[in-house]
Amino acid sequence: MSKGKDPASGPSESGTPRAAVGRVSLYLRQLETLLRAGQQTISSNQLGEALRITDAQVRKDLAYFGQFGYPGIGYRVAELRDSLKAILGTDRTWQVALIGAGNLGRALLGYRGFVERGFQIAAVFDSDASLVGKLIQGQEIYSLDRLGELIQAKGLQMAVLAVPATAAEQVIDRVVAAGIVGILNFAPVQLKVPPEVNVVSVDLGLQFEQLAFQVSQARSASSNNGTAH
Amino acid sequence: MSKGKDPASGPSESGTPRAAVGRVSLYLRQLETLLRAGQQTISSNQLGEALRITDAQVRKDLAYFGQFGYPGIGYRVAELRDSLKAILGTDRTWQVALIGAGNLGRALLGYRGFVERGFQIAAVFDSDASLVGKLIQGQEIYSLDRLGELIQAKGLQMAVLAVPATAAEQVIDRVVAAGIVGILNFAPVQLKVPPEVNVVSVDLGLQFEQLAFQVSQARSASSNNGTAH
Repeated sequence: MSKGKDPASGPSESGTPRAAVGRVSLYLRQLETLLRAGQQTISSNQLGEALRITDAQVRKDLAYFGQFGYPGIGYRVAELRDSLKAILGTDRTWQVALIGAGNLGRALLGYRGFVERGFQIAAVFDSDASLVGKLIQGQEIYSLDRLGELIQAKGLQMAVLAVPATAAEQVIDRVVAAGIVGILNFAPVQLKVPPEVNVVSVDLGLQFEQLAFQVSQARSASSNNGTAH
Repeated sequence: MSKGKDPASGPSESGTPRAAVGRVSLYLRQLETLLRAGQQTISSNQLGEALRITDAQVRKDLAYFGQFGYPGIGYRVAELRDSLKAILGTDRTWQVALIGAGNLGRALLGYRGFVERGFQIAAVFDSDASLVGKLIQGQEIYSLDRLGELIQAKGLQMAVLAVPATAAEQVIDRVVAAGIVGILNFAPVQLKVPPEVNVVSVDLGLQFEQLAFQVSQARSASSNNGTAH
């Protein structure tokens, strides 16, 4: 296996391991929880414990991005939170194109978790002529023919692709040609894009697997011990 | 911070770290890719490299679940794949209740990634009386009043919660009372459930953060080097 062939696991353009960047999101979530609880400092050991990884892995992950700890103190929670947000690029608001105004697109348009993290859907597109011109949640649905024009006029760099697999393969070249450099892909298909375009694919089946594990474990624990619950 | 207070990161019922279980899903995905490519064995070093974590972390993760490696060979790809599927509980089919037949529910009903991993939606529920009795993708929408009756008749253990946050808080007690022990939660809210009920929450904002990082890095790399792309 050569490194970096799998887009989900290889190094990012800057040479930082993607898995480490994934953990940065989890550290950030953890730091936000700690801040709400009023905790001001944390050790790499404690931060690792919360995610159940070794303190060495925490220090290695963070070392890719800089020097954040203080001897004898550990990390300052608010400062590390701000640093990680800046590293992730979520210390600003991103205006995003939504491609696909079907069920998933409409669901995502109302998804509070996007706005909370600084992502705002600024234009909605669909290939279905019967939808074009209609309003959903206050946003006009534009024809895909206007993709290039509007993405450039609004200066958008990111798009959410909420279309079926076959439509994704048809639309991806137009999205790239319009100047989009980051795609959050919900279509269950591997997109062919040039190297300068970043794709993050959402795999909901993976989350279901985690649940299957928990339910399976709970059942076998209860049948092994004979403990009812 | 006490261990295990955060449901997303604490130990599961069996004492296995949830983060390790999350990585098992990623190992499984990697093994499936390798199998398709015809690779028969892999070392912990190679498996770690693909996900950019240390071989020690790979061995530690897998050691929670058993002894899988062979001296001088490493892991046998097909065998480890089968073992990990059995561990995750995805070596069988799960029949699942879908709660919420709105935009998100309808999108999930058609989501190919669920069926591919062995999850089949066996009953659809909604509180909206105008939807009850209608068919979506060949499935009848049932009233929430029939939740307990139908979940027990069909022997369902898992539910997908695809309702807004306020509705989730209203419906969760009925879901638990109906005997559901595993919930895939799309509502952006922390659900209050008894300890024997497992909840996996889907955080789409996290995926967006990963994309923001990649786009930010690519931009700063291109402005630092003066290379256009």
